[in-house]
Amino acid sequence: MTAPNSPIAKLGHIAAYTPDLEESLWFFEDVLGFKVTERVDDTAYLRGMRDWEHHTLSLTEGGSGIDHVAFRTRTPEAVDELAAQFESEGADVTRVDAGEERGQGEAVRVQRFGHQYEFYYDVEKPQAPEGKRSKLHNRNYSEAEANRIAPRRIDHCHVQDGVSPEHAAWLQDTLGFQVNERFRAEDGEYWGWWLSVTPLPHDIAIHREPAGTDPAFHHVSYHLDSFQDLWEAADILAEHGIAPDGGPGRHAITRADFLYVSDPASGLRVEFFAGPGYLNFEPDWEPIEWTADEIGGATDHQWIGRGPEWDGIPYAGWE
Amino acid sequence: MTAPNSPIAKLGHIAAYTPDLEESLWFFEDVLGFKVTERVDDTAYLRGMRDWEHHTLSLTEGGSGIDHVAFRTRTPEAVDELAAQFESEGADVTRVDAGEERGQGEAVRVQRFGHQYEFYYDVEKPQAPEGKRSKLHNRNYSEAEANRIAPRRIDHCHVQDGVSPEHAAWLQDTLGFQVNERFRAEDGEYWGWWLSVTPLPHDIAIHREPAGTDPAFHHVSYHLDSFQDLWEAADILAEHGIAPDGGPGRHAITRADFLYVSDPASGLRVEFFAGPGYLNFEPDWEPIEWTADEIGGATDHQWIGRGPEWDGIPYAGWE
Amino acid sequence: MTAPNSPIAKLGHIAAYTPDLEESLWFFEDVLGFKVTERVDDTAYLRGMRDWEHHTLSLTEGGSGIDHVAFRTRTPEAVDELAAQFESEGADVTRVDAGEERGQGEAVRVQRFGHQYEFYYDVEKPQAPEGKRSKLHNRNYSEAEANRIAPRRIDHCHVQDGVSPEHAAWLQDTLGFQVNERFRAEDGEYWGWWLSVTPLPHDIAIHREPAGTDPAFHHVSYHLDSFQDLWEAADILAEHGIAPDGGPGRHAITRADFLYVSDPASGLRVEFFAGPGYLNFEPDWEPIEWTADEIGGATDHQWIGRGPEWDGIPYAGWE
Amino acid sequence: MTAPNSPIAKLGHIAAYTPDLEESLWFFEDVLGFKVTERVDDTAYLRGMRDWEHHTLSLTEGGSGIDHVAFRTRTPEAVDELAAQFESEGADVTRVDAGEERGQGEAVRVQRFGHQYEFYYDVEKPQAPEGKRSKLHNRNYSEAEANRIAPRRIDHCHVQDGVSPEHAAWLQDTLGFQVNERFRAEDGEYWGWWLSVTPLPHDIAIHREPAGTDPAFHHVSYHLDSFQDLWEAADILAEHGIAPDGGPGRHAITRADFLYVSDPASGLRVEFFAGPGYLNFEPDWEPIEWTADEIGGATDHQWIGRGPEWDGIPYAGWE
Repeated sequence: MTAPNSPIAKLGHIAAYTPDLEESLWFFEDVLGFKVTERVDDTAYLRGMRDWEHHTLSLTEGGSGIDHVAFRTRTPEAVDELAAQFESEGADVTRVDAGEERGQGEAVRVQRFGHQYEFYYDVEKPQAPEGKRSKLHNRNYSEAEANRIAPRRIDHCHVQDGVSPEHAAWLQDTLGFQVNERFRAEDGEYWGWWLSVTPLPHDIAIHREPAGTDPAFHHVSYHLDSFQDLWEAADILAEHGIAPDGGPGRHAITRADFLYVSDPASGLRVEFFAGPGYLNFEPDWEPIEWTADEIGGATDHQWIGRGPEWDGIPYAGWE
Repeated sequence: MTAPNSPIAKLGHIAAYTPDLEESLWFFEDVLGFKVTERVDDTAYLRGMRDWEHHTLSLTEGGSGIDHVAFRTRTPEAVDELAAQFESEGADVTRVDAGEERGQGEAVRVQRFGHQYEFYYDVEKPQAPEGKRSKLHNRNYSEAEANRIAPRRIDHCHVQDGVSPEHAAWLQDTLGFQVNERFRAEDGEYWGWWLSVTPLPHDIAIHREPAGTDPAFHHVSYHLDSFQDLWEAADILAEHGIAPDGGPGRHAITRADFLYVSDPASGLRVEFFAGPGYLNFEPDWEPIEWTADEIGGATDHQWIGRGPEWDGIPYAGWE
Repeated sequence: MTAPNSPIAKLGHIAAYTPDLEESLWFFEDVLGFKVTERVDDTAYLRGMRDWEHHTLSLTEGGSGIDHVAFRTRTPEAVDELAAQFESEGADVTRVDAGEERGQGEAVRVQRFGHQYEFYYDVEKPQAPEGKRSKLHNRNYSEAEANRIAPRRIDHCHVQDGVSPEHAAWLQDTLGFQVNERFRAEDGEYWGWWLSVTPLPHDIAIHREPAGTDPAFHHVSYHLDSFQDLWEAADILAEHGIAPDGGPGRHAITRADFLYVSDPASGLRVEFFAGPGYLNFEPDWEPIEWTADEIGGATDHQWIGRGPEWDGIPYAGWE
Repeated sequence: MTAPNSPIAKLGHIAAYTPDLEESLWFFEDVLGFKVTERVDDTAYLRGMRDWEHHTLSLTEGGSGIDHVAFRTRTPEAVDELAAQFESEGADVTRVDAGEERGQGEAVRVQRFGHQYEFYYDVEKPQAPEGKRSKLHNRNYSEAEANRIAPRRIDHCHVQDGVSPEHAAWLQDTLGFQVNERFRAEDGEYWGWWLSVTPLPHDIAIHREPAGTDPAFHHVSYHLDSFQDLWEAADILAEHGIAPDGGPGRHAITRADFLYVSDPASGLRVEFFAGPGYLNFEPDWEPIEWTADEIGGATDHQWIGRGPEWDGIPYAGWE
């Protein structure tokens, strides 16, 4: 659905750390087929074949973990309005100067529930470089530059913590996200929320870890054109001796097809997402409710319930 | 893109006439695989497998042509606000009582540029009937009820008239649509506009016919899951001896794959739409510009320029 | 590869028993989309959408298990030549009169290694019945009669026993099958053989169970047009509350994509087979050799080694 | 079908000339994704990702046109037996020494009906070079080396002349090809024959040009994994400013999906072939018969009848 009153337009990018930028670029660029827009000092800025913004992923050498999840606002004014709102909630707000992240104008960051979110409006949309640029105006990179995975665009991210109900409520109330689907675990409590400000089945998902668990990042997801690309991804990973974290399979929630794989260098987990999931354009959507026993029969019921026992990716230590 | 200030959430439905409802239902239901929600008096209400609203197409026996194109608003209040706006523009506004169209609450209609648009917010979202309903909460009809075309959801519509620049400007200024792509013909004037309030490449397209041409409806488009379904549609049409109006092919504009076919009874043209088109989430999108010579090399350049010489479908005579 | 000297043209059909023919037909016809050519007394004759022969599967009410696996010969004379050959090997040969199996001429059956094989040449190729027949001469059933699984044609079968090396050698030496792929288990002994007389990666596979294990039938496989149909099969099974035996996944051996599911009534296991497997036209093919550790990195390594612990389907007690 | 008595196993390769080998390699290797096995003097030897033989296409600098079409025999002896047979028919037979074509043993060539055919059995099957080789034993090149077209294997060829009925009869009677499909033109005479010795719908097709027309080569076809790859091919060609000769579309005859494109340097026409065509395993196949009016309703009826007015590719002047 398209949340009527949200200040947020879309998921923008993920900023992560890697202990070995060369190794991570081998994985993201050579193996997976991401495109590097620019590399400045210790940071590489990457995006998919049909991402328009300067980057949808940044990798900075030094340590590991996630720095922030960035959302683009619908209007320029929304950046300051959100900053004021966060301050009124008592949260610390950090101002980010234009250019501090390449290609991006002024932004604000806030830490909530142990996650760090960034909000920006101004962003460059550089065309693919000469020679790699599509002749077709409605494409960025030429298909001649694509491998057989060819991540198309950032789709969503997934985070986890011990206070997810409050976190989900904040995303709804403060940021205007709408809950598309919701999963209730065996203990009767909600375990997962799939939230969006766009017609995508989710721009962000959260699931609840045991109380006291450190907040963590679970994965960033990129959209592929099709099933076939997802299976080609599995074949290409096999050729490189890299085992997927899971999949290919079809999600019960969202109905999309998936493959998870982690960067061997940084541990950053990427999901490839494809297939006949849905778009939801209804402004008055009632969340789809799942319980552990109802979800039986869905094609990947093994992926729900407590889910795969994967480590979350910690946030890097901003104090 | 998601237009920040649009009162419109999405394309809702098309209301059309047919001289022979039985024949039209044979085509839409038996051949194409649409689902009939309800049939009341001389009107059948239809939708795709994964449409949630009561209907996305209505067919009323008696004559032929289009009655109206309906958009759902983002908020309940927007219906009256739009009515007031249209009246301030000097347009005639018709009030539609709740239930006059099955499954729909109060609505307003306005005639602009010879087209009739309807705006509503309240709408029923009936589940598929028992026995045809998916066990999966995030699907409406069961896949076991699908043929090999299986229209999924309404996607967009396309209209034409002799005053399209004014019409496109009105859609932008009054209704908050954003132009995603635009085509400039050999005469240097814009010929076509692809506009949306959602991330779809268009919710509505308009192209310009010669001055004085009657306004007409070109087609309504339904989304299929894939390429394969598009080609299966062509095969199934072949089995029924029905020649497509065009396709399968890939559009230069929107980059989606298409097949056009018209209901033999009513002449209503349907497009099936699938494949690796794009979604556009950027709130500050600059329209993609095409000219006749630049579009060369795009896979279906024959579909652009003046386009296929197909008749538009007239609006039924509302006075 | 196409074995130069094989008397066998292709896998013909599987004859199985079911305790409840109605239930089995619900599964095969209504759920999976098989077509029933004819039903005579307690036997239903079925085939896929693009099978040309009278049947590729027969289901006879009374008990359960497999009666025989039938191969079509390349020439009429080969049937008697094979009978003479089997007799010279000391095997019991049973003559089957024309018409004893509907649509089939004279045939011979032989029991070897506890499996029963049938060989026939004469067979009827009835067109799909009027109204379900494709208008396209190179198709049998109309696509308008297809569900979203739409089994296309019989592909291969898989059997198991405790004497597989001898069994595989007999298929090679007596029947002219060629080994396309071969798997060597941890104990250093061959565990599985994928054999064909056609360019398919296998017409029949055998794997070795522990010595003394009863010979059994593992599955019969039908080809689908694509990946998508395989996943639709999984979705349709989910709607019917039927859990697949395994998959969807991609085989390491054969490189095809698969889904296994068993008839709830008879236990007969069917595999759906699709995707970018290979055809092998080389007449001097050297078997591809796999060992347990080499197969690592293949996308479904869990499906090989000892394989899933599924029961084989016993042969019905012919004495 | 698999012709029971044919000495031929499969289509082997096409040997063609090009005025500019560098330009042709740009097209075949860089644009289309063919793999070069070896380059010796003025000849480059190419193949698809999953071709096993040394080459399935050779390009020799100097002039243009086709040198020969090569078939692999089922047995080593068949090469000499065919030579004797051709001599008994009064045809000139040329002996080709082992190694004269790289990777190939002794072969014979014969000119019949103005076409030059070659027959060989001995052939090398070099693995893809280290670093480009698949880790999966049943694949040759690694998917990591594939572009988004990725021709998989040679599929068939198509030739034309003014004496096609005699030519088709010779293929049937002398070489043991079986006719799978046949098209009768408006004049009541057969116009086209689709013949095979394998289960492919055709290994070679012939169509009839007006009497006196020079024999010519129409195209060589390579199999792709899917629809998607066919459309990606169209997109990639568009990026390079190369217009396809025709397609993508679906053939009425063979039911496969196609895209035709010619090497800008040599004029050699390649067809990409994919999708839900059929395999035919029946040894007693009766040719499918099409007439001009019956073929109506098939999805690409425009591709049949007299067919597209494309030039054939002449045979280079062997005297």
